Amino acid sequence: PSLFTLPEHSMCSMEEKSINLSSVLDFQGTRDYSPKQMAIRDRVFSVIIDCFKRHGAETIDTPVFELKETLTGKYGEDSKLIYDLKDQGGELLSLRYDLTVPFARFLAMNKITNIKRYHIAKVYRRDNPAMTKGRYREFYQCDFDIAGQYDPMIPDAECLKIIHEILSALQIGAFVIKVNDRRILDGMFAVCGVPESKFRSICSAVDKLDKMAWEDVRSEMVGEKGLSPEIADHIGEYVQLRGGLSLIEQLLQDPKLSQNKLAREGLEEMKLLFEYLTIFGILEQVSFDLSLARGLDYYTGVICEAVLQQSDQTDESVSVGSIAGGGRYDGLVGMFDPKGRKVPCVGFSVGIERIFSIMEQKVAASEEKIRTTGTQVLVASAQKKLLEERLKLVSELWDSGIKAEVLYKKNPKLLNQLQYCEETGIPLVAILGEQELNDGVVKLRDVATREEVLMVHHTLL
Amino acid sequence: PSLFTLPEHSMCSMEEKSINLSSVLDFQGTRDYSPKQMAIRDRVFSVIIDCFKRHGAETIDTPVFELKETLTGKYGEDSKLIYDLKDQGGELLSLRYDLTVPFARFLAMNKITNIKRYHIAKVYRRDNPAMTKGRYREFYQCDFDIAGQYDPMIPDAECLKIIHEILSALQIGAFVIKVNDRRILDGMFAVCGVPESKFRSICSAVDKLDKMAWEDVRSEMVGEKGLSPEIADHIGEYVQLRGGLSLIEQLLQDPKLSQNKLAREGLEEMKLLFEYLTIFGILEQVSFDLSLARGLDYYTGVICEAVLQQSDQTDESVSVGSIAGGGRYDGLVGMFDPKGRKVPCVGFSVGIERIFSIMEQKVAASEEKIRTTGTQVLVASAQKKLLEERLKLVSELWDSGIKAEVLYKKNPKLLNQLQYCEETGIPLVAILGEQELNDGVVKLRDVATREEVLMVHHTLL
Repeated sequence: PSLFTLPEHSMCSMEEKSINLSSVLDFQGTRDYSPKQMAIRDRVFSVIIDCFKRHGAETIDTPVFELKETLTGKYGEDSKLIYDLKDQGGELLSLRYDLTVPFARFLAMNKITNIKRYHIAKVYRRDNPAMTKGRYREFYQCDFDIAGQYDPMIPDAECLKIIHEILSALQIGAFVIKVNDRRILDGMFAVCGVPESKFRSICSAVDKLDKMAWEDVRSEMVGEKGLSPEIADHIGEYVQLRGGLSLIEQLLQDPKLSQNKLAREGLEEMKLLFEYLTIFGILEQVSFDLSLARGLDYYTGVICEAVLQQSDQTDESVSVGSIAGGGRYDGLVGMFDPKGRKVPCVGFSVGIERIFSIMEQKVAASEEKIRTTGTQVLVASAQKKLLEERLKLVSELWDSGIKAEVLYKKNPKLLNQLQYCEETGIPLVAILGEQELNDGVVKLRDVATREEVLMVHHTLL
Repeated sequence: PSLFTLPEHSMCSMEEKSINLSSVLDFQGTRDYSPKQMAIRDRVFSVIIDCFKRHGAETIDTPVFELKETLTGKYGEDSKLIYDLKDQGGELLSLRYDLTVPFARFLAMNKITNIKRYHIAKVYRRDNPAMTKGRYREFYQCDFDIAGQYDPMIPDAECLKIIHEILSALQIGAFVIKVNDRRILDGMFAVCGVPESKFRSICSAVDKLDKMAWEDVRSEMVGEKGLSPEIADHIGEYVQLRGGLSLIEQLLQDPKLSQNKLAREGLEEMKLLFEYLTIFGILEQVSFDLSLARGLDYYTGVICEAVLQQSDQTDESVSVGSIAGGGRYDGLVGMFDPKGRKVPCVGFSVGIERIFSIMEQKVAASEEKIRTTGTQVLVASAQKKLLEERLKLVSELWDSGIKAEVLYKKNPKLLNQLQYCEETGIPLVAILGEQELNDGVVKLRDVATREEVLMVHHTLL
């Protein structure tokens, strides 16, 4: 196979059809992916997988359904969104809700105490779909997690570095990675006077600050959740704080917070985290944000969330939605171990559907032509009755590892064959004719430039 | 990034753990994939996907569940194996049973009349699992299909060529691709005197010939299905025939078969198919086999099934199971089109779980070491207190696109760092020490040969 350098992914000036949105299965909150959407999806996946591999991650896979009891009690209020399978005899099964709980089950079941793995797979939520925003009932998650007992904040810092690398490589605009720590939140709740039994529910209320105004969150705390207005206001002072190392230093001096063991531990480790992020050179996109709470129950330490930024009319940078999130969960694996053995974990999930939506919009807005196949040569004929010769040549090309096609017609017109190349972006066409066959040569034409060369048949392979 | 040529997938002489079978979730007929199993799976997938792309295929994806009614009436007796979702309000949903019906639904819904696509995804069957044979309730299918109105047998021949290329490339042993045609079967049933209403059920009985003796199939035909013994015996004479072009010629001369329009059409196209297969040079592995029937209702023309061969004690070649199968189904898409517009299709599915099992056994039996990561360099230190320097260097390597790792310990022992390389197959270790840092160099060691070179720091990137 010494042919010549074939352009693997050359783009051709074909007419681009707009991305087919009728393939969205609105009624059930799912979607088909057309070949064009698959090409975009593969591009996004390969950026992300390359990054995970650059950091030495392995990959695993788990079944799409788990025992119902495996998922029970892991998601708090969101459990109502779990899809159950019909009871057709046997165990009760549910579709997985995320990849974190199956990962924890996998670690416990296989007694794995150290692993750095990624897992890209679909998860299922009976949520209200909002397809234009990339919110579906079946959607991909891209998870990266580091499990193992290590020195503080080193794996946590690498997770943030990886999020930074992925969002930078995808070129989907400016972003900020918010970080906080459940220990700081819990310490803050304690010094504000929240009873410990209400930590999780107040945490859920704080989590809504990215979508609701403080006034509304405060009402929820005082009304539904029964906090005194003074305690709520005290929390309100803290959760408006965001910043960097100097804020951490300031809070370490805070007379109340610094007296709380949990908060002090969280703040000291946050300081360490920021030192590592400085070494990684990603401080500019990281914000220590006391309003970040994350909904899920299982986080125990650092939590993070990456949001895309956009300039509004007044040129202020505003958040347009979360695109990745995660944190440390040191207790989850132990819930699946018969002896409760803990495996500390930290990781994150990339909101890939959102990224697909953005990429699709970018492609639609740009002039870029997306090829959905990689075919390098179409084997064509200029005359009738050359089907056997075409089949013979295309077969030789396949056997030489060359990506080749032939039209499935006995006597296709040359024009139709050339049009097929233009439509699908095939860069080269090998044209057979009586004369060439007699001379033992093949005419090879560059579809875009129309330049032609005669190749001796055997040198083509 | 001008470093040097890094061995991307170099294998290291680490101790290989045997593949963990405890990760099989027996009770529900599903399995986890460990990193090692994923590495094998990826290898198989890449052989198959490369082949599909070599033939110019696009790819699509569809949801894991379909409307229950989409699957109804497509699988005959096997419908009882479909997994339903619990009715939690909204439409009734079922997990997909194969990828062919979703493909047909996709074509009809999007009014696509021409496509050559592959689809690799999991399907679900409430069957009795037999994990050692690679039979699960959740398993992958790799489907390739050509849809469109074309000249006879050209796409059909390409499908067989692709099966041949895949099974050859996988190197899993000798194989035979059996072919037959539903029209020949139906014509045969007609000339034997089977009433037309019994064609499909007698076809199902014939399909069992690969697992049951003729005597038992005959009993089923005469007993359960109510054929006369004479008709059954007549069928029995035909279904024992297998061969090549000469058998086709012989049957075209058969006084009864040749009078049947359907059978004659099927035989003439079978002859054409064999001419194309001759051009493709794959005749040796193809057998025209009148006992091949295929279970599913929707086939309308050519059917095929690839089986692996093994020598038994008497050195006779015996079949050890089906590994790919498919056929032509010209009516299925029309079932989903409101106006019944037909889109002729031909395609096949590769039984990938079976191939995984064989590959896993091959790897376990061989001395081959499977790496589960692609890490090229471990950044290590020879002394304490060099965490920041390690993090700085590994971060620079990541930013240069190099696959690198660092141990998540403040002060790891050099021995532990070297052991980590040996265990995971990392070929190179960059060792930092006070002296090297002062000199602005990094010591780079080849883990296998223990050769060391000093690199000026900036030339490493």
